[in-house]
Amino acid sequence: MMMHISSIFVLSHHQSNLNTLMNTSILNRRTIRKYAQRDIDSNLLNGLLALAARTQTMGNLQLYSVVVTRSAEGKAALAPAHFNQPMVTEAPVVLTICADFHRTSRWAECRKAVPGYDNMLSFLNAATDALLFTQTFCNLAENEGLGICYLGTTIYNPQAIIDALQLPRLVFPVATLTVGWPDEQPPLSDRLPLDSFMHDEVYHEPTPDDIDRFYVQKEQLPENRHFVEINNKETLAQVFTDIRYTRDANEACSESVLSALRNQGFLNE
Amino acid sequence: MMMHISSIFVLSHHQSNLNTLMNTSILNRRTIRKYAQRDIDSNLLNGLLALAARTQTMGNLQLYSVVVTRSAEGKAALAPAHFNQPMVTEAPVVLTICADFHRTSRWAECRKAVPGYDNMLSFLNAATDALLFTQTFCNLAENEGLGICYLGTTIYNPQAIIDALQLPRLVFPVATLTVGWPDEQPPLSDRLPLDSFMHDEVYHEPTPDDIDRFYVQKEQLPENRHFVEINNKETLAQVFTDIRYTRDANEACSESVLSALRNQGFLNE
Repeated sequence: MMMHISSIFVLSHHQSNLNTLMNTSILNRRTIRKYAQRDIDSNLLNGLLALAARTQTMGNLQLYSVVVTRSAEGKAALAPAHFNQPMVTEAPVVLTICADFHRTSRWAECRKAVPGYDNMLSFLNAATDALLFTQTFCNLAENEGLGICYLGTTIYNPQAIIDALQLPRLVFPVATLTVGWPDEQPPLSDRLPLDSFMHDEVYHEPTPDDIDRFYVQKEQLPENRHFVEINNKETLAQVFTDIRYTRDANEACSESVLSALRNQGFLNE
Repeated sequence: MMMHISSIFVLSHHQSNLNTLMNTSILNRRTIRKYAQRDIDSNLLNGLLALAARTQTMGNLQLYSVVVTRSAEGKAALAPAHFNQPMVTEAPVVLTICADFHRTSRWAECRKAVPGYDNMLSFLNAATDALLFTQTFCNLAENEGLGICYLGTTIYNPQAIIDALQLPRLVFPVATLTVGWPDEQPPLSDRLPLDSFMHDEVYHEPTPDDIDRFYVQKEQLPENRHFVEINNKETLAQVFTDIRYTRDANEACSESVLSALRNQGFLNE
C-alpha cells in the first residue's frame, strides 16, 4: 500500500533530530518477497545472528533457537506449512525462530537441577525471548540491505514445522523469516496515526469519531477500495473479518496451536 | 555479568563488515536500571514510537497499543505488579505495550463487520505484533542513547496491570519498558556461543559434551560462582530452577495469565 506524502512528512517532523542510519533503514523498510539470485554469505548471516543475540533475554537464558534452512529439500519440506507461499522456496535462506526451553532444561538435567518449564508461562517467556531476538535480527539485516518477509503462518500450522525441523519437546516455532537480497522495491505501506495506538496514562476507549479518524486514510487508499470492490464487500473491515482473518479460521488455528503446544510439552496440566 | 574479552573478539570478527552505527549500539547495549534526573522530550518519544510502528505487522493491522506512564501516581499504581522494582517509579517514562485486538474489533463493529478475535490464535498474533514493535522501539531508543530495562514481570501479574491501566476486553499487557537517560554503565552481560542456538537444517539435540561447551563460560564467571555460593547451591542451573524460576512460581503464574486472558476475552471457548 502506498504511503501518503503527508504521513511521511509527519514522520520526518517527529524524527528530525534522531540519529540517521537506522532511522533511514526503518523509515524505508518494506516487506520483500522477491529475491535476487544471490546467496547470503554465512559469515554475514552468522554475524547478524550473533549480534541479534545481544538483545535482552529472560535471566540471560536466551530461550530461543534458530533453524537455518538453505537446502532445497528443507525449503520444500517447510513450504506446505506456509501455504506454499513462493518466498519459502525462492529465498536463499529461511529462518525458523523457536521458543526453546529444551536446551535450558537439558542444561539443568546435566547439572543436578530439576527444570519446571512445561507450562504456559514458560512458553510465553520463551516466545517473548524468541520474538525480541527475531526483531533485532530483522532490524540489523534490513540495515545491511537484506530484504525480509515475516511469515505469520508459522503458528497456523506449527505441527508441520515441528515435524519438518525435528523440534524436540519444549521447542516451538514462533516466527519464520525468508531472507535474501531484494529484487523488488514495493511502495511503503500505510500506518495508523500515532494517537490510534498511543495512550496517555490509561487506555482511552476510541469513540466512533476516533475510529473514523484513525482508519479514514487506510480506507481511502485506492488499493484498499479495489480490495473491497473485487471481494464484493461493503467495507474494508469486512475484507478482514469475512475473508482474510475469519472467526472460523482463527478458532481452528487456535485448536492447532493449543494441540501443538500440548504435544511439545508446554501444557502439562 | 562481565563479557569476556575473547567473546567480544569473536563478535568483532563476525561483524567486521557490517554497517557500524546500529551495530555499535547493539554491541554496547546493556540493561539500564538507573536513570538521570532528566525527562524524555515528548517529541523524541513520539518520534521513536512512530518510527517503531514501521515494523511489519499482521495484515498491516497494528495489533498493539502502548500506554505511556509519566505521572507519579501512574507509576505507583504499576509498581506492585512489578514487585516494586525501583525502576518503575524512578524512570521518567514507563511504557506498557499491549496486544490489542480491541481497536480493530471496534473498527469492524463501526463498519458493519463482525470480528472473531476472542481466541488464542488472535492473542498470539496480537502479542507477536506487540513484541516486534517493542523490540524495534528498544533498538531505536538505545541508538539514541536512551537506557531501557525490559520488565519480564508484565505477564506474571497481568490482572494488576489491566486494572491500573483500565485495559478493555481484547487488550492484554505483554511487555513493560522503563526508559530514561542512563546514569550507570554496567558491564556487558555474557552470551552463549552461536552454535548453542543456531541449528543447521534441523534441530540438533545437544549432547552432554555440547552442554558443557555451551555453558562453561557462563558457569565460570566470578559473579555466577558467587551466586551459587551465597545461595548454598551446587550448580548455577540450580539457582535458576530452585530460586529464580521455580516450577511452583511458573505454574502459579501460568494460572494467573490464563485467568487474565479469559477475563480479557481471549479464551472464549
